[in-house]
Amino acid sequence: MQAVPPALERLIHDLTKLPGIGRKTATRLALYLLRSPASEARALAEDLATLHSSIRLCSGCFAFSETDPCPICGDARRNHRLVCVVEQPGDLMAIEKTGSFKGVYHILHGVLSPMDGIGPEELKIRELYQRISRGEVEEILLATSSTVPGEATASYLADHLHRYPVRITRLACGIPMGMDIKYADKYTLGQAIDSRRSMDE
Amino acid sequence: MQAVPPALERLIHDLTKLPGIGRKTATRLALYLLRSPASEARALAEDLATLHSSIRLCSGCFAFSETDPCPICGDARRNHRLVCVVEQPGDLMAIEKTGSFKGVYHILHGVLSPMDGIGPEELKIRELYQRISRGEVEEILLATSSTVPGEATASYLADHLHRYPVRITRLACGIPMGMDIKYADKYTLGQAIDSRRSMDE
Repeated sequence: MQAVPPALERLIHDLTKLPGIGRKTATRLALYLLRSPASEARALAEDLATLHSSIRLCSGCFAFSETDPCPICGDARRNHRLVCVVEQPGDLMAIEKTGSFKGVYHILHGVLSPMDGIGPEELKIRELYQRISRGEVEEILLATSSTVPGEATASYLADHLHRYPVRITRLACGIPMGMDIKYADKYTLGQAIDSRRSMDE
Repeated sequence: MQAVPPALERLIHDLTKLPGIGRKTATRLALYLLRSPASEARALAEDLATLHSSIRLCSGCFAFSETDPCPICGDARRNHRLVCVVEQPGDLMAIEKTGSFKGVYHILHGVLSPMDGIGPEELKIRELYQRISRGEVEEILLATSSTVPGEATASYLADHLHRYPVRITRLACGIPMGMDIKYADKYTLGQAIDSRRSMDE
Protein backbone atom coordinates (compact mmCIF):
# COMPACT_ATOMS: atom_id res chain seq x y z
CA MET A 1 0.00 0.00 0.00
CA GLN A 2 1.33 3.31 -1.02
CA ALA A 3 0.95 5.80 1.83
CA VAL A 4 3.36 8.42 0.47
CA PRO A 5 2.44 10.03 -2.88
CA PRO A 6 5.30 9.65 -5.42
CA ALA A 7 5.89 13.43 -5.72
CA LEU A 8 6.28 13.68 -1.95
CA GLU A 9 8.45 10.56 -1.86
CA ARG A 10 10.80 12.07 -4.48
CA LEU A 11 11.19 15.24 -2.41
CA ILE A 12 11.85 13.23 0.77
CA HIS A 13 14.42 11.17 -1.13
CA ASP A 14 16.18 14.35 -2.40
CA LEU A 15 16.26 15.84 1.09
CA THR A 16 17.81 12.73 2.68
CA LYS A 17 20.89 13.31 0.45
CA LEU A 18 21.66 16.50 2.41
CA PRO A 19 24.18 16.20 5.24
CA GLY A 20 22.62 15.55 8.65
CA ILE A 21 19.12 15.00 7.24
CA GLY A 22 17.70 11.53 7.88
CA ARG A 23 14.44 10.02 6.68
CA LYS A 24 12.37 11.38 9.59
CA THR A 25 13.69 14.94 9.30
CA ALA A 26 13.26 14.85 5.52
CA THR A 27 9.65 13.71 5.93
CA ARG A 28 8.98 16.46 8.46
CA LEU A 29 10.47 19.14 6.15
CA ALA A 30 8.59 17.84 3.09
CA LEU A 31 5.26 17.75 4.94
CA TYR A 32 5.91 21.24 6.29
CA LEU A 33 6.47 22.51 2.73
CA LEU A 34 3.34 20.74 1.52
CA ARG A 35 1.23 22.34 4.26
CA SER A 36 2.75 25.80 3.65
CA PRO A 37 1.62 28.03 0.77
CA ALA A 38 2.92 26.81 -2.59
CA SER A 39 4.82 30.11 -2.94
CA GLU A 40 7.28 29.05 -0.24
CA ALA A 41 8.23 25.81 -2.03
CA ARG A 42 8.43 27.68 -5.35
CA ALA A 43 10.73 30.39 -3.92
CA LEU A 44 13.04 27.68 -2.61
CA ALA A 45 12.85 25.87 -5.97
CA GLU A 46 13.81 29.01 -7.90
CA ASP A 47 16.74 29.84 -5.66
CA LEU A 48 17.99 26.27 -5.94
CA ALA A 49 17.59 26.23 -9.72
CA THR A 50 19.66 29.39 -10.20
CA LEU A 51 22.22 28.66 -7.48
CA HIS A 52 24.93 27.14 -9.65
CA SER A 53 24.38 29.40 -12.64
CA SER A 54 24.64 32.64 -10.67
CA ILE A 55 27.60 31.73 -8.46
CA ARG A 56 31.15 31.09 -9.71
CA LEU A 57 34.61 30.97 -8.15
CA CYS A 58 36.52 34.26 -7.84
CA SER A 59 39.72 33.91 -9.91
CA GLY A 60 41.66 35.75 -7.20
CA CYS A 61 40.76 33.96 -3.99
CA PHE A 62 38.48 31.11 -5.19
CA ALA A 63 35.58 32.24 -3.00
CA PHE A 64 32.01 31.66 -4.17
CA SER A 65 30.87 34.92 -5.75
CA GLU A 66 28.42 36.32 -8.27
CA THR A 67 31.17 38.56 -9.66
CA ASP A 68 34.82 38.03 -10.65
CA PRO A 69 36.73 39.42 -8.84
CA CYS A 70 34.61 38.91 -5.74
CA PRO A 71 33.57 41.94 -3.66
CA ILE A 72 36.46 41.35 -1.25
CA CYS A 73 39.21 40.96 -3.90
CA GLY A 74 37.76 43.97 -5.73
CA ASP A 75 37.79 46.20 -2.64
CA ALA A 76 40.75 48.64 -2.71
CA ARG A 77 40.28 49.40 1.00
CA ARG A 78 41.22 45.84 1.97
CA ASN A 79 44.87 45.03 2.65
CA HIS A 80 45.88 42.95 -0.38
CA ARG A 81 49.31 42.25 1.16
CA LEU A 82 47.73 40.11 3.90
CA VAL A 83 46.24 36.85 2.64
CA CYS A 84 44.21 34.58 4.91
CA VAL A 85 44.27 30.93 3.79
CA VAL A 86 41.12 28.98 4.69
CA GLU A 87 39.80 25.51 3.92
CA GLN A 88 36.30 26.31 2.70
CA PRO A 89 34.04 29.25 1.76
CA GLY A 90 32.13 28.76 5.02
CA ASP A 91 35.34 29.60 6.92
CA LEU A 92 35.63 32.90 5.03
CA MET A 93 32.06 33.78 6.04
CA ALA A 94 32.82 33.00 9.69
CA ILE A 95 35.94 35.23 9.62
CA GLU A 96 34.14 38.09 7.84
CA LYS A 97 31.48 38.04 10.57
CA THR A 98 34.12 38.85 13.22
CA GLY A 99 34.98 42.16 11.48
CA SER A 100 38.55 41.56 12.76
CA PHE A 101 40.17 40.83 9.42
CA LYS A 102 40.98 43.56 6.91
CA GLY A 103 43.06 41.49 4.46
CA VAL A 104 41.99 39.24 1.60
CA TYR A 105 41.50 35.47 1.33
CA HIS A 106 42.69 32.36 -0.43
CA ILE A 107 40.35 29.37 -0.30
CA LEU A 108 41.99 25.93 -0.57
CA HIS A 109 38.69 24.08 -1.13
CA GLY A 110 39.69 21.27 1.18
CA VAL A 111 42.48 19.98 3.39
CA LEU A 112 45.32 17.56 2.72
CA SER A 113 44.05 14.06 3.37
CA PRO A 114 46.28 11.37 1.82
CA MET A 115 43.90 8.60 2.97
CA ASP A 116 41.15 10.12 0.82
CA GLY A 117 43.53 10.79 -2.09
CA ILE A 118 43.57 14.56 -1.44
CA GLY A 119 47.12 15.79 -2.07
CA PRO A 120 48.43 19.31 -2.80
CA GLU A 121 47.36 19.00 -6.46
CA GLU A 122 43.70 18.60 -5.46
CA LEU A 123 43.70 21.89 -3.51
CA LYS A 124 44.25 25.49 -4.68
CA ILE A 125 47.85 25.38 -3.42
CA ARG A 126 49.66 25.92 -6.74
CA GLU A 127 47.44 28.98 -7.24
CA LEU A 128 48.57 30.24 -3.82
CA TYR A 129 52.24 29.93 -4.84
CA GLN A 130 51.51 31.74 -8.12
CA ARG A 131 49.76 34.51 -6.23
CA ILE A 132 52.73 34.94 -3.88
CA SER A 133 55.19 34.82 -6.81
CA ARG A 134 53.53 37.90 -8.25
CA GLY A 135 55.21 39.66 -5.31
CA GLU A 136 52.34 41.56 -3.77
CA VAL A 137 51.88 39.41 -0.66
CA GLU A 138 53.69 40.21 2.60
CA GLU A 139 51.92 37.95 5.08
CA ILE A 140 50.12 34.63 4.84
CA LEU A 141 47.76 33.91 7.73
CA LEU A 142 47.12 30.16 7.85
CA ALA A 143 43.54 29.87 9.10
CA THR A 144 42.86 26.18 8.53
CA SER A 145 40.88 24.48 11.28
CA SER A 146 42.59 23.26 14.41
CA THR A 147 41.79 19.65 13.51
CA VAL A 148 44.39 16.99 12.61
CA PRO A 149 44.05 17.49 8.82
CA GLY A 150 43.78 21.28 9.29
CA GLU A 151 46.99 21.41 11.31
CA ALA A 152 48.74 19.06 8.86
CA THR A 153 47.76 21.32 5.96
CA ALA A 154 49.02 24.40 7.85
CA SER A 155 52.35 22.66 8.58
CA TYR A 156 52.71 21.57 4.97
CA LEU A 157 52.05 25.10 3.74
CA ALA A 158 54.38 26.67 6.35
CA ASP A 159 57.18 24.32 5.23
CA HIS A 160 56.71 25.12 1.55
CA LEU A 161 56.11 28.86 1.96
CA HIS A 162 59.48 29.43 3.64
CA ARG A 163 61.09 29.71 0.22
CA TYR A 164 59.05 32.87 -0.43
CA PRO A 165 59.85 36.22 1.21
CA VAL A 166 56.59 36.29 3.18
CA ARG A 167 55.75 36.29 6.86
CA ILE A 168 53.78 33.18 7.81
CA THR A 169 51.31 33.35 10.67
CA ARG A 170 48.77 31.00 12.21
CA LEU A 171 45.51 31.76 14.04
CA ALA A 172 46.27 32.22 17.75
CA CYS A 173 45.21 30.12 20.68
CA GLY A 174 41.66 30.84 21.63
CA ILE A 175 40.07 28.28 19.36
CA PRO A 176 39.41 25.08 21.33
CA MET A 177 41.45 22.17 19.95
CA GLY A 178 39.53 19.87 17.63
CA MET A 179 36.88 22.46 16.82
CA ASP A 180 36.07 23.31 13.22
CA ILE A 181 36.51 27.09 12.83
CA LYS A 182 33.14 27.42 11.08
CA TYR A 183 31.47 26.72 14.43
CA ALA A 184 33.58 28.98 16.65
CA ASP A 185 31.76 32.00 18.09
CA LYS A 186 32.80 35.27 16.49
CA TYR A 187 34.44 36.75 19.61
CA THR A 188 36.77 33.79 20.10
CA LEU A 189 37.54 33.78 16.40
CA GLY A 190 38.12 37.55 16.41
CA GLN A 191 40.55 37.26 19.33
CA ALA A 192 42.37 34.46 17.56
CA ILE A 193 42.85 36.71 14.52
CA ASP A 194 44.14 39.62 16.63
CA SER A 195 46.73 37.47 18.41
CA ARG A 196 47.87 35.36 15.45
CA ARG A 197 51.33 33.84 15.96
CA SER A 198 54.30 33.58 13.62
CA MET A 199 55.19 30.22 12.10
CA ASP A 200 58.69 31.37 11.11
CA GLU A 201 61.16 29.41 13.26
CA MET B 1 31.60 43.85 3.36
CA GLN B 2 29.57 41.26 1.61
CA ALA B 3 30.97 37.80 2.31
CA VAL B 4 27.91 35.81 1.21
CA PRO B 5 26.91 36.13 -2.49
CA PRO B 6 23.25 37.28 -2.79
CA ALA B 7 22.11 34.07 -4.54
CA LEU B 8 23.57 32.01 -1.71
CA GLU B 9 22.14 34.38 0.91
CA ARG B 10 18.64 33.99 -0.62
CA LEU B 11 18.88 30.20 -0.43
CA ILE B 12 20.11 30.34 3.18
CA HIS B 13 17.22 32.69 4.02
CA ASP B 14 14.69 30.31 2.41
CA LEU B 15 16.10 27.33 4.30
CA THR B 16 15.93 29.05 7.70
CA LYS B 17 12.13 29.20 7.27
CA LEU B 18 11.98 25.41 7.55
CA PRO B 19 11.20 23.97 10.99
CA GLY B 20 14.26 23.09 13.05
CA ILE B 21 16.70 24.71 10.60
CA GLY B 22 18.70 27.62 12.04
CA ARG B 23 21.14 29.93 10.31
CA LYS B 24 24.16 27.63 10.79
CA THR B 25 22.41 24.51 9.52
CA ALA B 26 20.96 26.47 6.58
CA THR B 27 24.44 27.74 5.68
CA ARG B 28 25.87 24.23 5.91
CA LEU B 29 23.13 22.82 3.65
CA ALA B 30 23.45 25.66 1.12
CA LEU B 31 27.24 25.30 0.90
CA TYR B 32 26.86 21.55 0.54
CA LEU B 33 24.49 22.06 -2.41
CA LEU B 34 26.88 24.60 -3.95
CA ARG B 35 29.81 22.17 -3.72
CA SER B 36 27.74 19.27 -5.08
CA PRO B 37 27.03 18.85 -8.80
CA ALA B 38 24.44 21.35 -10.09
CA SER B 39 22.19 18.39 -10.99
CA GLU B 40 21.51 17.70 -7.32
CA ALA B 41 20.25 21.23 -6.63
CA ARG B 42 18.23 21.14 -9.87
CA ALA B 43 16.56 17.82 -8.99
CA LEU B 44 15.55 19.24 -5.63
CA ALA B 45 14.33 22.44 -7.33
CA GLU B 46 12.16 20.50 -9.78
CA ASP B 47 10.60 18.32 -7.13
CA LEU B 48 9.84 21.40 -5.01
CA ALA B 49 8.37 23.29 -7.96
CA THR B 50 5.94 20.49 -8.83
CA LEU B 51 5.11 19.49 -5.25
CA HIS B 52 1.94 21.51 -4.81
CA SER B 53 0.68 21.07 -8.36
CA SER B 54 0.97 17.27 -8.33
CA ILE B 55 -0.41 16.63 -4.85
CA ARG B 56 -3.99 17.35 -3.75
CA LEU B 57 -6.23 16.26 -0.88
CA CYS B 58 -8.21 13.04 -1.31
CA SER B 59 -11.92 13.97 -1.14
CA GLY B 60 -12.62 10.84 0.91
CA CYS B 61 -10.03 10.93 3.69
CA PHE B 62 -8.19 14.27 3.08
CA ALA B 63 -4.80 12.56 2.76
CA PHE B 64 -2.18 14.07 0.46
CA SER B 65 -2.41 12.16 -2.80
CA GLU B 66 -1.67 12.46 -6.51
CA THR B 67 -5.03 10.85 -7.27
CA ASP B 68 -8.59 11.34 -6.02
CA PRO B 69 -9.60 9.05 -4.41
CA CYS B 70 -6.21 8.25 -2.91
CA PRO B 71 -4.76 4.73 -3.33
CA ILE B 72 -6.05 3.74 0.13
CA CYS B 73 -9.64 5.02 -0.33
CA GLY B 74 -9.69 3.47 -3.82
CA ASP B 75 -8.58 0.04 -2.59
CA ALA B 76 -11.53 -2.39 -2.39
CA ARG B 77 -9.47 -4.79 -0.24
CA ARG B 78 -9.32 -2.28 2.64
CA ASN B 79 -12.07 -2.34 5.25
CA HIS B 80 -14.07 0.82 4.53
CA ARG B 81 -16.23 0.25 7.64
CA LEU B 82 -13.26 0.95 9.91
CA VAL B 83 -12.08 4.59 9.83
CA CYS B 84 -8.91 5.69 11.61
CA VAL B 85 -8.97 9.39 12.55
CA VAL B 86 -5.51 11.02 12.64
CA GLU B 87 -4.24 14.56 13.09
CA GLN B 88 -1.89 14.89 10.14
CA PRO B 89 -0.80 13.06 6.95
CA GLY B 90 2.48 12.14 8.68
CA ASP B 91 0.49 10.10 11.21
CA LEU B 92 -1.14 8.14 8.38
CA MET B 93 2.32 7.32 6.99
CA ALA B 94 3.49 6.13 10.42
CA ILE B 95 0.44 3.86 10.80
CA GLU B 96 0.73 2.46 7.26
CA LYS B 97 4.34 1.48 8.01
CA THR B 98 3.17 -0.83 10.82
CA GLY B 99 1.15 -2.93 8.40
CA SER B 100 -1.30 -3.49 11.32
CA PHE B 101 -4.17 -1.43 10.00
CA LYS B 102 -6.46 -2.67 7.24
CA GLY B 103 -9.13 0.04 7.42
CA VAL B 104 -9.20 3.53 5.88
CA TYR B 105 -8.37 6.98 7.25
CA HIS B 106 -9.79 10.38 8.01
CA ILE B 107 -7.28 13.20 8.42
CA LEU B 108 -8.33 16.10 10.64
CA HIS B 109 -5.45 18.37 9.52
CA GLY B 110 -4.83 19.58 13.05
CA VAL B 111 -6.03 19.27 16.64
CA LEU B 112 -8.46 21.37 18.65
CA SER B 113 -6.55 24.24 20.20
CA PRO B 114 -8.85 27.05 21.43
CA MET B 115 -5.82 29.15 22.47
CA ASP B 116 -4.68 29.23 18.82
CA GLY B 117 -8.20 29.77 17.51
CA ILE B 118 -8.48 26.19 16.19
CA GLY B 119 -12.05 24.99 16.85
CA PRO B 120 -14.02 22.13 15.25
CA GLU B 121 -14.78 24.32 12.20
CA GLU B 122 -11.08 24.62 11.38
CA LEU B 123 -10.64 20.82 11.23
CA LYS B 124 -12.18 18.21 8.90
CA ILE B 125 -14.70 17.26 11.62
CA ARG B 126 -17.92 18.17 9.79
CA GLU B 127 -16.66 16.04 6.90
CA LEU B 128 -16.20 13.15 9.34
CA TYR B 129 -19.83 13.44 10.51
CA GLN B 130 -21.01 13.56 6.87
CA ARG B 131 -19.00 10.47 6.10
CA ILE B 132 -20.53 8.60 9.05
CA SER B 133 -24.05 9.83 8.13
CA ARG B 134 -23.74 8.06 4.80
CA GLY B 135 -24.05 4.91 6.93
CA GLU B 136 -21.10 2.86 5.76
CA VAL B 137 -18.92 3.27 8.86
CA GLU B 138 -19.05 0.78 11.75
CA GLU B 139 -16.02 1.76 13.79
CA ILE B 140 -14.10 4.98 14.36
CA LEU B 141 -10.57 4.46 15.69
CA LEU B 142 -9.41 7.74 17.26
CA ALA B 143 -5.66 7.82 16.61
CA THR B 144 -4.81 11.37 17.62
CA SER B 145 -1.55 11.75 19.51
CA SER B 146 -1.38 11.08 23.24
CA THR B 147 -0.58 14.75 23.92
CA VAL B 148 -2.88 17.18 25.76
CA PRO B 149 -4.47 18.63 22.58
CA GLY B 150 -4.54 15.16 20.96
CA GLU B 151 -6.40 13.68 23.95
CA ALA B 152 -8.74 16.68 24.12
CA THR B 153 -9.56 16.24 20.42
CA ALA B 154 -10.22 12.51 20.94
CA SER B 155 -12.52 13.26 23.92
CA TYR B 156 -14.39 15.92 21.95
CA LEU B 157 -14.90 13.53 19.03
CA ALA B 158 -15.91 10.62 21.30
CA ASP B 159 -18.55 12.85 22.97
CA HIS B 160 -19.99 14.00 19.66
CA LEU B 161 -19.82 10.65 17.88
CA HIS B 162 -22.04 8.92 20.43
CA ARG B 163 -25.11 10.12 18.56
CA TYR B 164 -24.11 7.97 15.59
CA PRO B 165 -24.50 4.19 15.57
CA VAL B 166 -20.75 3.54 15.42
CA ARG B 167 -18.27 1.86 17.73
CA ILE B 168 -15.68 4.34 18.97
CA THR B 169 -12.20 3.10 19.82
CA ARG B 170 -8.92 4.69 20.85
CA LEU B 171 -5.33 3.55 20.27
CA ALA B 172 -4.32 1.24 23.14
CA CYS B 173 -1.76 1.78 25.82
CA GLY B 174 1.68 1.11 24.50
CA ILE B 175 2.40 4.61 23.29
CA PRO B 176 4.36 6.51 25.94
CA MET B 177 2.36 9.47 27.31
CA GLY B 178 3.26 12.81 25.78
CA MET B 179 4.83 11.27 22.68
CA ASP B 180 3.72 12.37 19.22
CA ILE B 181 2.61 9.23 17.35
CA LYS B 182 4.66 10.19 14.28
CA TYR B 183 7.80 9.37 16.26
CA ALA B 184 6.66 6.09 17.85
CA ASP B 185 8.48 2.99 16.60
CA LYS B 186 6.36 0.82 14.37
CA TYR B 187 6.21 -2.17 16.74
CA THR B 188 4.82 -0.11 19.63
CA LEU B 189 2.41 1.59 17.27
CA GLY B 190 1.38 -1.75 15.75
CA GLN B 191 0.65 -3.22 19.20
CA ALA B 192 -1.36 -0.12 20.12
CA ILE B 193 -3.53 -0.67 17.04
CA ASP B 194 -4.06 -4.38 17.80
CA SER B 195 -5.18 -3.71 21.39
CA ARG B 196 -7.25 -0.58 20.77
CA ARG B 197 -9.76 0.07 23.56
CA SER B 198 -13.42 1.09 23.38
CA MET B 199 -14.43 4.61 24.29
CA ASP B 200 -18.10 3.67 24.69
CA GLU B 201 -18.98 4.01 28.37
